Amino acid sequence: MAEPKQHQRISGDQLRAFIAAAFEAVAVPREDAKVIAQLMTQADINGSEGHGVFRLPQYIRRIKGGAVNVQPNIRVEREMPGMALVHGDNGMGHLVMKFAAEKAIEKAKTAGVAWVGAKWSNHAGPAALYAAMPPMHNMIGLYMAVGSANHLPPWGGLDMLLSTNPIAVAVPAGDEPAIVLDMATTVAAYGKVKTKAQRGEMMPEGWMMDRQGNALTDPKRASEGFLLPIGGYKGYGLALVLGLLAGNLNGAAMGKDVVDFNNDDTTETNTGHAIIAINIEAFQPLDEFKQGMDTLIRDVRNSQRLPGVDRIRLPGEGTHVARADNEKNGIPMPEALLAALDQLAGDLKIEKLAR
Amino acid sequence: MAEPKQHQRISGDQLRAFIAAAFEAVAVPREDAKVIAQLMTQADINGSEGHGVFRLPQYIRRIKGGAVNVQPNIRVEREMPGMALVHGDNGMGHLVMKFAAEKAIEKAKTAGVAWVGAKWSNHAGPAALYAAMPPMHNMIGLYMAVGSANHLPPWGGLDMLLSTNPIAVAVPAGDEPAIVLDMATTVAAYGKVKTKAQRGEMMPEGWMMDRQGNALTDPKRASEGFLLPIGGYKGYGLALVLGLLAGNLNGAAMGKDVVDFNNDDTTETNTGHAIIAINIEAFQPLDEFKQGMDTLIRDVRNSQRLPGVDRIRLPGEGTHVARADNEKNGIPMPEALLAALDQLAGDLKIEKLAR
Repeated sequence: MAEPKQHQRISGDQLRAFIAAAFEAVAVPREDAKVIAQLMTQADINGSEGHGVFRLPQYIRRIKGGAVNVQPNIRVEREMPGMALVHGDNGMGHLVMKFAAEKAIEKAKTAGVAWVGAKWSNHAGPAALYAAMPPMHNMIGLYMAVGSANHLPPWGGLDMLLSTNPIAVAVPAGDEPAIVLDMATTVAAYGKVKTKAQRGEMMPEGWMMDRQGNALTDPKRASEGFLLPIGGYKGYGLALVLGLLAGNLNGAAMGKDVVDFNNDDTTETNTGHAIIAINIEAFQPLDEFKQGMDTLIRDVRNSQRLPGVDRIRLPGEGTHVARADNEKNGIPMPEALLAALDQLAGDLKIEKLAR
Repeated sequence: MAEPKQHQRISGDQLRAFIAAAFEAVAVPREDAKVIAQLMTQADINGSEGHGVFRLPQYIRRIKGGAVNVQPNIRVEREMPGMALVHGDNGMGHLVMKFAAEKAIEKAKTAGVAWVGAKWSNHAGPAALYAAMPPMHNMIGLYMAVGSANHLPPWGGLDMLLSTNPIAVAVPAGDEPAIVLDMATTVAAYGKVKTKAQRGEMMPEGWMMDRQGNALTDPKRASEGFLLPIGGYKGYGLALVLGLLAGNLNGAAMGKDVVDFNNDDTTETNTGHAIIAINIEAFQPLDEFKQGMDTLIRDVRNSQRLPGVDRIRLPGEGTHVARADNEKNGIPMPEALLAALDQLAGDLKIEKLAR
């Protein structure tokens, strides 16, 4: 079993340069390659290990297979004061969602709240990357997406018509770090299953079930079963409505139309997302809001604990800790991932990841 | 143990008349009393038994105690094209949220999407009542609220700083009934605990935990423990961010400031809610959207089932069934509830509920 503490640690700069070079090698324009590399590296720095450079070989494979457009015309297709619909032209999801988030922030300045949907996009990495953009402008960010592979059946069912459809909410505070919730509507995200498989680790019971209804704990057998929703039928309902809001509403894929991008390198996915920016000052003076957030955060953190619990955590706290550590000491990289990236470098005839 | 099939059944008209008379008896203006009675009765017709007339004695007690303003000046305090902030002036939550939902619908006609927050409101009944209003105008409705009593500690904690903060999402379809998700972020809503207590039934394990971390199954001991969130820390995170969006953002009560309206008849609650209306035609032609919804609903309903499962359900299906049954056959009323309402009628010197 892998020992995370023995992982080599790679600096953000090294990782960004490698990722950008990889995308340039498959004809992604330099500026776009830099944007994607910056967001993917940020995912790793934040500790979203299943959604950062881990996905690079797959992204490159799909570009080479013609599934993703490397020169998309990302554009606003429809617009009203409180909303926009972005057509991603099958570009990399990172580019589409950065565009959409910036649009939402811009519109929320004059509309107070703006909801921007996106269609014809692709996998964009961790939800929190985009939810965290409005807070840089003193706004609350909400993000939701149709996941890029169906792993969840309706409650009581066997046909995997739903994905792990995630939701992220980021709320800025004053002196305290922002609250950032980023959760799949399944007990575990599929990226975590893939990470377990790559590390040669088993999954806890409750993450997945096989088609006979038994617990499935070997991540290498993941294709034989399905993920379980949080709270039983509630998590199923949540995954469904998030899919309606991020998928159906935008004219993006949902249900049977979702392409499993893990096992397909040639088909367009028409991935749907939504980002909402809420301008806090439309509701109340910013200082008052931030003071209230700090008070609440401290009330929660300092509240009484169950026996054996060392600390009450706020959503996003793990990310803040990982970010500080990884920015200082580099991003931990499992051997198997480094080997995969070295192979990718060979295939693309680019320099290996420096280390 | 009570036998639901032996419950007396009361028509919606009888119930509406009784509720309206009760509110008029405590100086609520006639038109407002009718609106509240209509919404509370609709809750019962929809099968939201913990949030309909069951709450009437408590509402009346709080009005008599001076905790609720019977002649509120409900108004828009702040407004931009995509948002409004409603000041409820401590009026009944039903009046505040009907006002807020109508405002959201009106604004979404020109803004595409509108987010309306409310503060200085009160308990408004089931979340789905308000989420279901935008669909009557071919819009999607989202509703969230800070619950009216804290029953949920942060994950790993003992201090009940959070409520069951619910979310509801209602999405219209074409020939198929709308999808309506209405869920507390706890495994069970506190209203369900109260219903169990009134019926003399025990709760299943997993609904509540006592302060030593043991399962609590006797609803009469509910005050000795707390509700459990769905999906562990995920449900805690969800309850927290819903509270930030419906509470903090609006300048409404959250955390320590939440008043337990079950055990207090004199204090204003400053309850916060939010309603979002999404104008579907801003995103795509309505017919296309509705066809897509019908297809998805049928794909889910007709999908393969686990052994022993008789039917795959869509969120809201139980409500559709209950509504059809209750509209035709009357609303089932447990004896204990009828007795409580008879006592209330005596106190208020109004006619008993006809039956």
